[in-house]
Amino acid sequence: MLTDIQIAQSCKMLPIVEIAKKLDISEDELELYGKYKAKLSNELWERIKDKKDGKLVLVTAINPTPAGEGKTTTTVGLGQAMSKIGKKAIIALREPSLGPVMGIKGGAAGGGYSQVVPMEDINLHFTGDMHAITAANNLLSAAIDNHIHQGNSLNIDVRQIVWKRAMDMNDRALRNIVVGLGGKANGIPREDGFLITVASEIMAILCLSMNLMDLKERLGKIIIGYDYDGNPVTAKDLKVNGAMALLLKDAIKPNIVQTLENTPVIMHGGPFANIAHGCNSIMATKIALKLADYCITEAGFGADLGAEKFFNIKCRMAGLKPDAVVLVATIRALKYNGGVKKEDLGVENLHALKSGIVNLEKHIENIKKFGLPVIVAINHFESDTDEEIEFVKNFCKNMNVDVAFSDVFSKGGEGGKELAEKLVELLDTAVSNFKPLYDINLPIKEKIEIIAKEIYGAKSVIYSSKVDKTIKKIESMGLDKLPICMAKTQYSLSDNPSLLGRPEGFEITVKELKISAGAGFIVALTGDIMTMPGLPKVPAAEKIDIDSSGVIQGLF
Amino acid sequence: MLTDIQIAQSCKMLPIVEIAKKLDISEDELELYGKYKAKLSNELWERIKDKKDGKLVLVTAINPTPAGEGKTTTTVGLGQAMSKIGKKAIIALREPSLGPVMGIKGGAAGGGYSQVVPMEDINLHFTGDMHAITAANNLLSAAIDNHIHQGNSLNIDVRQIVWKRAMDMNDRALRNIVVGLGGKANGIPREDGFLITVASEIMAILCLSMNLMDLKERLGKIIIGYDYDGNPVTAKDLKVNGAMALLLKDAIKPNIVQTLENTPVIMHGGPFANIAHGCNSIMATKIALKLADYCITEAGFGADLGAEKFFNIKCRMAGLKPDAVVLVATIRALKYNGGVKKEDLGVENLHALKSGIVNLEKHIENIKKFGLPVIVAINHFESDTDEEIEFVKNFCKNMNVDVAFSDVFSKGGEGGKELAEKLVELLDTAVSNFKPLYDINLPIKEKIEIIAKEIYGAKSVIYSSKVDKTIKKIESMGLDKLPICMAKTQYSLSDNPSLLGRPEGFEITVKELKISAGAGFIVALTGDIMTMPGLPKVPAAEKIDIDSSGVIQGLF
Repeated sequence: MLTDIQIAQSCKMLPIVEIAKKLDISEDELELYGKYKAKLSNELWERIKDKKDGKLVLVTAINPTPAGEGKTTTTVGLGQAMSKIGKKAIIALREPSLGPVMGIKGGAAGGGYSQVVPMEDINLHFTGDMHAITAANNLLSAAIDNHIHQGNSLNIDVRQIVWKRAMDMNDRALRNIVVGLGGKANGIPREDGFLITVASEIMAILCLSMNLMDLKERLGKIIIGYDYDGNPVTAKDLKVNGAMALLLKDAIKPNIVQTLENTPVIMHGGPFANIAHGCNSIMATKIALKLADYCITEAGFGADLGAEKFFNIKCRMAGLKPDAVVLVATIRALKYNGGVKKEDLGVENLHALKSGIVNLEKHIENIKKFGLPVIVAINHFESDTDEEIEFVKNFCKNMNVDVAFSDVFSKGGEGGKELAEKLVELLDTAVSNFKPLYDINLPIKEKIEIIAKEIYGAKSVIYSSKVDKTIKKIESMGLDKLPICMAKTQYSLSDNPSLLGRPEGFEITVKELKISAGAGFIVALTGDIMTMPGLPKVPAAEKIDIDSSGVIQGLF
Repeated sequence: MLTDIQIAQSCKMLPIVEIAKKLDISEDELELYGKYKAKLSNELWERIKDKKDGKLVLVTAINPTPAGEGKTTTTVGLGQAMSKIGKKAIIALREPSLGPVMGIKGGAAGGGYSQVVPMEDINLHFTGDMHAITAANNLLSAAIDNHIHQGNSLNIDVRQIVWKRAMDMNDRALRNIVVGLGGKANGIPREDGFLITVASEIMAILCLSMNLMDLKERLGKIIIGYDYDGNPVTAKDLKVNGAMALLLKDAIKPNIVQTLENTPVIMHGGPFANIAHGCNSIMATKIALKLADYCITEAGFGADLGAEKFFNIKCRMAGLKPDAVVLVATIRALKYNGGVKKEDLGVENLHALKSGIVNLEKHIENIKKFGLPVIVAINHFESDTDEEIEFVKNFCKNMNVDVAFSDVFSKGGEGGKELAEKLVELLDTAVSNFKPLYDINLPIKEKIEIIAKEIYGAKSVIYSSKVDKTIKKIESMGLDKLPICMAKTQYSLSDNPSLLGRPEGFEITVKELKISAGAGFIVALTGDIMTMPGLPKVPAAEKIDIDSSGVIQGLF
């Protein structure tokens, strides 16, 4: 089989103007970035904002494993399949980060015959959104250090600056740095560090803003640190939230691209799914709902993190009502959850499948807690045996949940028709009674415990000693009535990555709380969360190349 | 009078497709970035590369003063004026850096009624070229630190890494930093620092490359540092020059925009004029020459730095033959050179004018040394008196050089018609005998001395003790047959910024040599050259804002 970049570069893209035309978007409502990428203008939103919404479908997955679930590939393939069965569908995705492209991943826009294109541009600079976020983030950092250097009239405590610099690069050497060295002309020395851009609060803010003025107000609320009296200092205090908003004036506009089969894709924003909420932007989702009958979107990591935050944070803030959920799994990943090693996943193992499928079971139960209809999508592999397939079908039947096998990686939309048909049937027959899982007015600990017990299946929550102090501080600032953004390992329902399947009786330990006042959520950290990845021994960058005829290698 | 951003936002831009059409560029040969910006495709170059070149005119200036000479404004106004008198002209400019926009400048695309638009986009992210350069620069840095962290098989000496990280921000706190702190998982601690992006060697390389493959090869030649045996380590040794080239695949394509009067502008690249050569890209200049009868371009700082490097580095490497030079001055700046304080420049002072005009005289002489016809353009101010104007006219007449007064800031192209007409006359009558000033095969010191004596008017050149050692090293690497890129204060013909006018009998002190092996020149540093600016006490960013109807403030 061809590599992803070979498939992507050999596909026949339509001009993005043509894709837009299918959605009744005129060329004047687009801001083109080359022939195959565009931003959707503010004027478009103004014209269509009172239209009826289409159906909102979330694609999520079991806990991720090294076996790979193909959630994004399934999302793209499902969107293509919807078109194949004659439905007007749009896919709404996160945009990939450049850093990991140069590290291990080599690319992140679906795979095989279910990709978003132009794949190489999307994986590189796309329409510049990430770079704009980086610039806004670092303008704020420069303003902080300049303020202190120029006399520090806000009395900022250099030991309590929580705002970090950002770069869209996998660069471990920038995790912990000391800046401001070199004497009087070169600023005040202090400890600092870089986040990867997608981990910047600005990315979360961009994705949760309703418009540019909402964005500017949220940027102003960012707490950069504390003064020597312990009071928060904000971006607004430094007077740079207007300039930051200006830097983001285009980044806030959703991007439109297409799949290999010319299905329209709105690709916009991509916050981390641990210290942030892991979904594409509210503006992108809202506009997608106006433009088509079905909007297929996804959230990061497994359903315990991505879907939970999609519902409790994004849908709550935006007033969105999802209509159904597609839960992606593979037989390989379920066997992995049942204790099989990665290298043995190609061998039939009904025992392991039975013991691992409880992970799927728990996620199905969780989604129902939000009042949502759910369908299981098994991303089919050649190694899946008839007995294994039969077992999964029976399991789902017993749970009263429909299941569809899809083969969108190697067959594109054609391989997702069964899933698409069953999804449409579900949407036509089942009713969504969506509601968030907790009331944001509850005390912080109660909100955390609802998520930990109801979603993760924990017995109890333990807090490190400093959490109580932080809670008091958050309450004193009047910021406690916000949703919780859990930062937890994606590999387990628990906070221990080695507990696969459906762990029970475990405790969740909250080590630290952080307030993202601009984004509007409280981050609860249950472990060491990596906010700046490193490069592997042989980075993908070493294989990446372009030749004189423009042929690209090493993106996959 | 209105502010620059008010003028810019109230002007009637033509769709860039229309501007291109005037140059016989089809829509298919453009890569649009919104309606008013585009990149010129490789296909366009292939189609027109064998056409006859237009005339190449360099706009340069006397040594810059706080009084302001308006070199870019004159360049833009002259281009507009050429159109007004019925000539087919293109302006070829550098693109502005974002960092200074947030600092003091607030914008850099001309001024008044001689601006390049869309001014706000050009001053912010434009078409993403700067961000792409930043990413390529920092990928190389990440690869260096990762290589060392993963075992350092190239034996890189962490004390001898010369490659720095880059950011397009004015941020003094990043000048001197320590990276890799935090223990074993977080890399190897070492000293580092950030350059502003325009000071990155990658910017110089992009501007001096003939095409993408040339770019990739030059990127590979970048010396990032030395191993423990003193041998150079290159980007190619780290195997990331292919990925760096891919990151720059769009950045290398010239951008087309327009002036307030719809004159086409090719705006591409913007290297520092001290540690780099300070001109827009070779590709931009070459393409502009094919598209119009007149290409009006400019170089950074005064003629002693910008023009010298334009001729000796850029024109030599690209095989370009300039046809004439426009030398910009103001009566105010000439009086400043004659010793008048900034606040007294509005008062008539023929004595000071007489004593300061020697600066103009020296630059005129210098340009003639390159075999080029020259015309003086006096950027007219209201405070200029009849006597002062008459004095300048007579002075130029005695030097056998034509002079034109222009008023393009307040009148646009109309205010530059006299200059345009005289320039056309010069081009029609005078012959260019352009040749670079020195042979690159001369020893390094001889090349430096030719520039110092012939251009600056120095008596002699002094070298600090380490220069000889560096020369030996450069010679041993076989890199000595390269042109010299002087890094010197722009405020004086000498290396002492307080020596105004036409200093004589002075010594130039070369403190250090650096090799830019990818760009292909040897940098001779005559003082402390700032490669990362800081923000002022009240940064422009504090005044910059955007409101709900998209109206922007604070860019000027």
